[in-house]
Amino acid sequence: MVSKGQIKLITSLQQKKYREKHGLFVGEGPKVISELKQENLKIHSFFSVNEHEITSEHDFHVTQAELQKISFLKTANTSLAIFEIPEPKPIETNGLTIALDAIRDPGNLGTIIRLCDWFGVKQLICSTDTTDCYNPKVVQATMGSLARVAIRYIDIENYLKETSLPIYGAFMDGENVYKKKLSQDAIVVMGNEANGVSETIEKLITKKITIPQFGNQTTESLNVATATAILLSEARRSTEM
Amino acid sequence: MVSKGQIKLITSLQQKKYREKHGLFVGEGPKVISELKQENLKIHSFFSVNEHEITSEHDFHVTQAELQKISFLKTANTSLAIFEIPEPKPIETNGLTIALDAIRDPGNLGTIIRLCDWFGVKQLICSTDTTDCYNPKVVQATMGSLARVAIRYIDIENYLKETSLPIYGAFMDGENVYKKKLSQDAIVVMGNEANGVSETIEKLITKKITIPQFGNQTTESLNVATATAILLSEARRSTEM
Repeated sequence: MVSKGQIKLITSLQQKKYREKHGLFVGEGPKVISELKQENLKIHSFFSVNEHEITSEHDFHVTQAELQKISFLKTANTSLAIFEIPEPKPIETNGLTIALDAIRDPGNLGTIIRLCDWFGVKQLICSTDTTDCYNPKVVQATMGSLARVAIRYIDIENYLKETSLPIYGAFMDGENVYKKKLSQDAIVVMGNEANGVSETIEKLITKKITIPQFGNQTTESLNVATATAILLSEARRSTEM
Repeated sequence: MVSKGQIKLITSLQQKKYREKHGLFVGEGPKVISELKQENLKIHSFFSVNEHEITSEHDFHVTQAELQKISFLKTANTSLAIFEIPEPKPIETNGLTIALDAIRDPGNLGTIIRLCDWFGVKQLICSTDTTDCYNPKVVQATMGSLARVAIRYIDIENYLKETSLPIYGAFMDGENVYKKKLSQDAIVVMGNEANGVSETIEKLITKKITIPQFGNQTTESLNVATATAILLSEARRSTEM
């Protein structure tokens, strides 16, 4: 059974303002839910079509039709959980950090979070106008990575002004990334899909870098997620040599 | 004016079997259309809301409502063109080639085509069960890159059996890609999103390579498009040193 109140709450969590108000977000399907639980995220309530999964007073047995009603997916999975948004971790002042300047596409954000997890980047700093990482599309795409990377939404201008680390940014006119050894204690800034890094942030970049182009000069610039993949690979490869 | 016959033709081109039957595909919006024209793709017919763009008997002036009716986009742009699918180019036996084994997601295929264009990979060989590159989503995402990369759909098993080039494949248990110099005359095989490289194809791989993981060991494997980005970057970086 799902109550009217529960339906209302879950539906509201599609929107960022209600996720912030309630401090909650939704994850769907056994794989996503079990990965987030493994990372010690607290469950507020849990809905499943499988009776044997109902083990506490916060668990609710539902029919597939009821689940479809509360699901954000076109075709509901077999379970849905409401998680508490964890307290943000304190900001690390060393190690490798990715800073995102107004990334809008949930698919790109999700890919970047998974890349951080793969390449052992523990901290992802997002400008306040970057897509919310608790957006359902991001949650479903990132799974456990979402909880393993410390993600903070802050004023990145202030953050970059205060750091003493080198600040790398990907630009068309920077230094060839293949010829430069990237520091393991640094911030890598990735810019908006359409406009790149904003002017205010560009002024704070200490080292502009470029991924060289080998093909036709009229090619569109690399997508922000694939550019992040290449830069993180470049940053880490030196530790393997 | 759009005739009933034109509407029927265009609508049918959403499906691969009709694209193949007619040898035609659809591109939408001035940017996509002009990029494809620049690459010398032949236009079968052209529909625009802008009267000044109507310059030949194959051009049709339409209202925004008429354009919306034939558009595959949620919100139609200002123009739509039907292009002739170009004759496939002969297969190159040297240089760097990407071979795709059953890539299903149009977004991934689109990203890989753009990566080929960026890194100067002139040839992309796709298994016959890989998503069609003239799928409207792929066309809109790749723009000019679609025409600059020679894309062939063939039996990749036979293709790989006949080549004398090294065949790289990305696997979890391969050689560290950072410690291996990749050849500029080689084939790089990328596998299906869920299942990786199929067993039959795996037997034909001559050098298994791995992108090392630096983070948590429970991380999901890298997405096929980001893995392609890293491998192409690795293949080309050595030419820059």
